[in-house]
Amino acid sequence: MSITTLGLDADDTLWHNETLFRLTQERFAELLSDFADRDVLHARLADVEARNLRLYGYGVKGFTLSMIETAMEFAAGADITAVVREILAAGREMLAHPVEPLPGVEAALAVLEDRYRLVLITKGDLLHQERKLAASGLGDRFSAVEVVSEKAPDVYVRVFARHGTGAEHAAMAGDSVRSDILPALAAGAFAALIPPAMVWAHEAAEPPAGHPRFAELPSIAELPARLEAWERAGV
Amino acid sequence: MSITTLGLDADDTLWHNETLFRLTQERFAELLSDFADRDVLHARLADVEARNLRLYGYGVKGFTLSMIETAMEFAAGADITAVVREILAAGREMLAHPVEPLPGVEAALAVLEDRYRLVLITKGDLLHQERKLAASGLGDRFSAVEVVSEKAPDVYVRVFARHGTGAEHAAMAGDSVRSDILPALAAGAFAALIPPAMVWAHEAAEPPAGHPRFAELPSIAELPARLEAWERAGV
Repeated sequence: MSITTLGLDADDTLWHNETLFRLTQERFAELLSDFADRDVLHARLADVEARNLRLYGYGVKGFTLSMIETAMEFAAGADITAVVREILAAGREMLAHPVEPLPGVEAALAVLEDRYRLVLITKGDLLHQERKLAASGLGDRFSAVEVVSEKAPDVYVRVFARHGTGAEHAAMAGDSVRSDILPALAAGAFAALIPPAMVWAHEAAEPPAGHPRFAELPSIAELPARLEAWERAGV
Repeated sequence: MSITTLGLDADDTLWHNETLFRLTQERFAELLSDFADRDVLHARLADVEARNLRLYGYGVKGFTLSMIETAMEFAAGADITAVVREILAAGREMLAHPVEPLPGVEAALAVLEDRYRLVLITKGDLLHQERKLAASGLGDRFSAVEVVSEKAPDVYVRVFARHGTGAEHAAMAGDSVRSDILPALAAGAFAALIPPAMVWAHEAAEPPAGHPRFAELPSIAELPARLEAWERAGV
C-alpha cells in the first residue's frame, strides 16, 4: 500500500492555538471579575459558544462575539464600554498574533514534503488560517490548503480525491480524535494522533486503539517513520 | 473556443446580500441616534470596517464586530448594554436570514448547468456562505464551491484549473467589476458583469468596456446566450 498524500491539521498540530484561546479566556474572566467568579464566567461563555457554533462556526471572530455576548449578561446596567473595548482588542490580538511552529514541526515537514504531497486541512476563519500559515513560514511546504467548515468523512474523501490519489492512499495527522482521526479513518485513510498539550472540551473523544490504520504518536517527529511502517506493512 | 466551466459569484449575483447589510446599517444608526447623526455613524462605521478588513476579512461576523467597535466610540459612558445586545442580535439575524434567489437566477442556472460545469466562487465567511447556498436551494446546481479570502487573478487561475479545463476555457459572471470581472479577465477567462442593484463603496471600479472577453448584461437571463455567442465567435 503506497501513501501519496499526507493531510495535516493546523491549530495545535503545527502551532499553538488553544493556549491563545485559554489565555484570552483568562483575560476575559479578569475583566469581568467585579461581576462574577472565573468559573461561572467560563462555564457561561462555553454555553454561549456552543449555542452560537451553528451560526458562527469555529474561529476567533465568533469567539470574540460570544465573549461580548456573555459580558452583556453579567454586566447589565454597568458601564461596560471599557470591557467591550478590551474584548475587541483581545480578539484583534488573537488574529494578529505571531505564529510559532511547535517543536519538531519544521524538521518533520522538511522530511515529509519530499515523500508526500502535503495538504493542510483545517477548520476556522478562512482569512485567519491563511494568515497563520503565511506567518508560520510553513506555507511553501504545502501543495494545497483546505479550510473546511466541518471535518466529516465525506470532506476527507473529497479533499484526498482532489489533491491526491484518494483517501485509501492518504494519511491524516492531527491532535483531535473527533476531527482528525475518526472521520479520516471512516474515509478509508490512515490516521496518526499527535496528542495536544490541552484538549478542547468540545473535542474530547476516545482514540480508536487497535484500528489497523490508526497510531498515536508521542510527537510529530515520529510521523515519517510511522508512515514508512504503514507503507511497508501494506495494510 | 469552447467554454467548459462557468464561475458564478454568490452575494448580489445569485441572491440579495448588500440589501441586508444596508438594512442592518440603518438599524445600527437608529440604535445610536441619541449619540450621533446617521451620516456621521455610517461614515465612522465605514472607516472602522476598512481598518479591520485586513484582520477580519469579508463577512457578517467582522461587520458585527466593527459595528460594536463603532458603537463604543459614540456611546462611551452611557449604558449601552442594550445597544450591544441589539447589534449582536442583528448580526445573528443576518447569519440566519432566509436566502431567496434573485429573479431569473433559477431559470438561468437550470439552462446553464446542462452546458457548463458550474462553480460558485465567493468571498465571505466559509460556514455562512455554505449555509446560504444550502438555504437558497441552488446547491445541487454547482459542481464545486470555492470560498476564497480574495478574488485575485491567480485565485481564478487555480480554481478554473482545479474544477475545469483552465481559465482560457472558463467564464466568470458576477456583480463586481473589481472582484469578478477584472481579475477573471487577467486570468484569461471570459467575464460577464451583471450589475448589482446597489454598488458597495469598497468595490466601485470602471467596467473594462471594449475588452474582447468582457460583456455587461442587463440580467442573468442573458447569460446563456452571451456564453454561446462567445463560443461561436471563437475569441
